[in-house]
Amino acid sequence: MIPLSKRKKKFIRSLARKKNRQAERLFLAEGDKLVRELIVHQRYKSGNRFSLGSIIATDEWFEANPDSGKLDIEFHQTTQPELDQISLQQTPNQVIAVVHQPDPDLDIAELKSGLSMGLEYLQDPGNLGTIIRIADWFGIRHILCSEDCVELYNPKVIQSTMGSFLRVNVHYVDLKAQIKNLKEDEKFMVYGTGRNGSNLFHTSLREKGIILFGNEANGLSPAIMDLADHILTIPYHDHTSHPESLNVATAAAILCAEFSRDHSK
Amino acid sequence: MIPLSKRKKKFIRSLARKKNRQAERLFLAEGDKLVRELIVHQRYKSGNRFSLGSIIATDEWFEANPDSGKLDIEFHQTTQPELDQISLQQTPNQVIAVVHQPDPDLDIAELKSGLSMGLEYLQDPGNLGTIIRIADWFGIRHILCSEDCVELYNPKVIQSTMGSFLRVNVHYVDLKAQIKNLKEDEKFMVYGTGRNGSNLFHTSLREKGIILFGNEANGLSPAIMDLADHILTIPYHDHTSHPESLNVATAAAILCAEFSRDHSK
Repeated sequence: MIPLSKRKKKFIRSLARKKNRQAERLFLAEGDKLVRELIVHQRYKSGNRFSLGSIIATDEWFEANPDSGKLDIEFHQTTQPELDQISLQQTPNQVIAVVHQPDPDLDIAELKSGLSMGLEYLQDPGNLGTIIRIADWFGIRHILCSEDCVELYNPKVIQSTMGSFLRVNVHYVDLKAQIKNLKEDEKFMVYGTGRNGSNLFHTSLREKGIILFGNEANGLSPAIMDLADHILTIPYHDHTSHPESLNVATAAAILCAEFSRDHSK
Repeated sequence: MIPLSKRKKKFIRSLARKKNRQAERLFLAEGDKLVRELIVHQRYKSGNRFSLGSIIATDEWFEANPDSGKLDIEFHQTTQPELDQISLQQTPNQVIAVVHQPDPDLDIAELKSGLSMGLEYLQDPGNLGTIIRIADWFGIRHILCSEDCVELYNPKVIQSTMGSFLRVNVHYVDLKAQIKNLKEDEKFMVYGTGRNGSNLFHTSLREKGIILFGNEANGLSPAIMDLADHILTIPYHDHTSHPESLNVATAAAILCAEFSRDHSK
């Protein structure tokens, strides 16, 4: 265990910026629960994709987590006030981990074998985090993101997934090209979401497919919507003045629950 | 139209605090879309509960909205930089309205005639706002909140409802006492939510009832859970390590969609 140097501290703070995260292929994960989950994954899970680079924590944290020492990584000892300065969270934690970004590996065959989600130009980190958490709950293993979506390694995304990023694969791709590729399989269904589609509750859903969700303000672009085999709409209750829309993460929750309902035993 | 005085500006800024909102029985609503909706409600909707006190806006906004002048309220002219100082939002707007808090009026008979939601010790403003938006979408007219829930008139709640607070009644009540009261009707069902309940997808849901959701970290308290006739669980996909939980607003979306599915024609 070595004390946290000024240089390392500066380096960690630099990872608040996307540019630096991409250059270093690293990201930050904060908090006792999440870091302990990362340690368990690294020690015991086959196929773990998230390899720890270093752990920065207070003495109290290291004392309470002696098994962290069994990992062959860097440990940096610090104080709570210093950790508070490095932390990107509103409520700073006792521990921060620096984690390697895994190499992208998109297995199209696996994607074709079940249900996944596709996100176009999603901008809000909290929405992406919530959608990853929903995917995890319903056993959805893959999310395709258009390249202009908010970055997975944005600290707000990572923290709001509550650890679900460990179990859900998020791929940044040319969304249009990938959907075209998936459509080549006739049994595979591309579901768009938006207004004026079929009533979700009256549609029977195919087990193999992708559900597409669009930008918070504008929904799916016409170019992507045109690729959908089927457009799904969540029906709203009949009001004289109907509500504007549902939040995209809310819509994702309802759609995923509906698929789960149709296909769980 | 009168220029915004220093005194009025100070007064509006004081409404950022719950204590002052409660003493004055006022709250703030920001943004062109929301303020225009408030004006339409006040001018045309019978039974409108939200009466405007004053509007503070830039010259450009008043020019673009001449019909606002038909209301018998105070208008204050200001500049964009001054508005930016008053605004509580991260992205300031051209217009802020000061709105009267309506008097509470809980109609138990109406509550008993359909589906409503009950929230215990909900703390996150974004969650309450999202749940109000979900209620609006699915035609749920009433939400009961325990007295220690986050306040409806918290600016983050108001803004995140996207105008849905105009159509959904949120009541702060002694939740335990009100549930006991509702339970006197035998046809009325009290649904708790949590782990180890019945699989939501295999349960047929009664049309008249209340669905209860608990605190973000702890769920429903045992005292409230004990009042439930039925506990509902959203089944998760079988993982070796299953996800921690769904966000409370995500769970509310899935439950409300399920009720809507069972009872829409």
